[in-house]
Amino acid sequence: MSQTAAIPAERVTAAILVIGDEILSGRTQDTNTSYIARFLAALGIDLCEARVVPDIEKEIVDALNAMRARYTYVFTTGGIGPTHDDITFESVAAAFGVGCYHHPEAMAAMAARYKPGEFNDARKRMAYIPVGAELVQNSVSTAPGVHIGNVFVMAGVPVIMRAMMDAIEPRLKRGAVVHAATIQTTLPEGRLAEGLGAIQRDNKTVAIGSYPFYREGGNGVQLVARGRNPDEVEAAARQIEAMLRALGSEGTRVTV
Amino acid sequence: MSQTAAIPAERVTAAILVIGDEILSGRTQDTNTSYIARFLAALGIDLCEARVVPDIEKEIVDALNAMRARYTYVFTTGGIGPTHDDITFESVAAAFGVGCYHHPEAMAAMAARYKPGEFNDARKRMAYIPVGAELVQNSVSTAPGVHIGNVFVMAGVPVIMRAMMDAIEPRLKRGAVVHAATIQTTLPEGRLAEGLGAIQRDNKTVAIGSYPFYREGGNGVQLVARGRNPDEVEAAARQIEAMLRALGSEGTRVTV
Repeated sequence: MSQTAAIPAERVTAAILVIGDEILSGRTQDTNTSYIARFLAALGIDLCEARVVPDIEKEIVDALNAMRARYTYVFTTGGIGPTHDDITFESVAAAFGVGCYHHPEAMAAMAARYKPGEFNDARKRMAYIPVGAELVQNSVSTAPGVHIGNVFVMAGVPVIMRAMMDAIEPRLKRGAVVHAATIQTTLPEGRLAEGLGAIQRDNKTVAIGSYPFYREGGNGVQLVARGRNPDEVEAAARQIEAMLRALGSEGTRVTV
Repeated sequence: MSQTAAIPAERVTAAILVIGDEILSGRTQDTNTSYIARFLAALGIDLCEARVVPDIEKEIVDALNAMRARYTYVFTTGGIGPTHDDITFESVAAAFGVGCYHHPEAMAAMAARYKPGEFNDARKRMAYIPVGAELVQNSVSTAPGVHIGNVFVMAGVPVIMRAMMDAIEPRLKRGAVVHAATIQTTLPEGRLAEGLGAIQRDNKTVAIGSYPFYREGGNGVQLVARGRNPDEVEAAARQIEAMLRALGSEGTRVTV
């Protein structure tokens, strides 16, 4: 942790738009957001916001237009399958003010995947993409995602979304990676809050978070220092450890 | 499923605002959204949107003001502990244009919880709530949530959030509960999409969703019919089963 990282001047930001009634009904537990969050963090891209909207075109369009104007990238998940409730490509096209068309390369790749007669109209919808979009390869099941402007449109099925993120990665600008140090303690937050606040005030380039947990086998708190300069993160972490020691507790470094 | 439900005229809607850097960094997997979604669904309240924002006052204020103007209720999670990164009460107060004060009842309840000298300034912050707010009881760890206007402010720690939802439940207007029937098949979506779309067009008061899954032991699709009238849901479900049968597959009713 002793090297001094060269920190790119430009911050690279992102938002996630999760599209799907099944998340809002509680039927499906979204796990894509946390996967994408960690994926982007490893590239130094700051995830700044996430939203979940239903399968309603106006909701998708409004959220996408708000987010794409504000962040370097927007990643959407869900709604690109062959059924009537899959309306993401049309909605993204509407947000960009363009139409959709059957993309020749996507049509050819999908036609090659199916037996004669099986590449029906519903399946062809998965190749009906916004004009001006580029394809995002799907190494799992062929039907592509797309990339238009600063928006990446991915499947909702996690195994396919992950394959698409791998395909997208080389196209992304990178930022300075955030370094984190995590110290776990059994002291309650209320006893360490004053000292922690003072350390935050002394370390303005490091974001210090306090996350209590309630688990079988004992409660505790994880104190996390995050920042782009590893030396500054380490200095803040040592101040946290010294503060805990002064309160009569040895903090434990943990990897999360 | 043969009774005809009396359907309240007024739709009751909700949004969730998840507050916390730890969700956007990928450190913590949010599970509160799906819990609240199912909790509200059981009361006939439609969850229409969810957002995750960082621990930044302006972001919290802007999202909260957008959501509280639009939905019957807004539920927030996170940021009400004693540490410096817990800024939700102040941010909610700013959204409503009010100040915060040490609520006497919350102060008394918390003072009774701690030993003499342990109810320090950091802990008193957890009783420093927006003017005009009512308390939401916390049966786990005393420090309250609050209710102001149409906004309910809850803890982020799941066990505490759940206790707060229980305390909130009697205050909520209820809507007509959505009934769902789920039929599972091994047919691929591309083969059933045309028939499913026709059933959706014939059943305008029922929302039909198609959710493919990739699991150990076999892939498949769950077809879900959802609506406020159970007879209409059942009629749509039977049409889906008949459609699958015509394609040579027996659908299986499942409970999710």
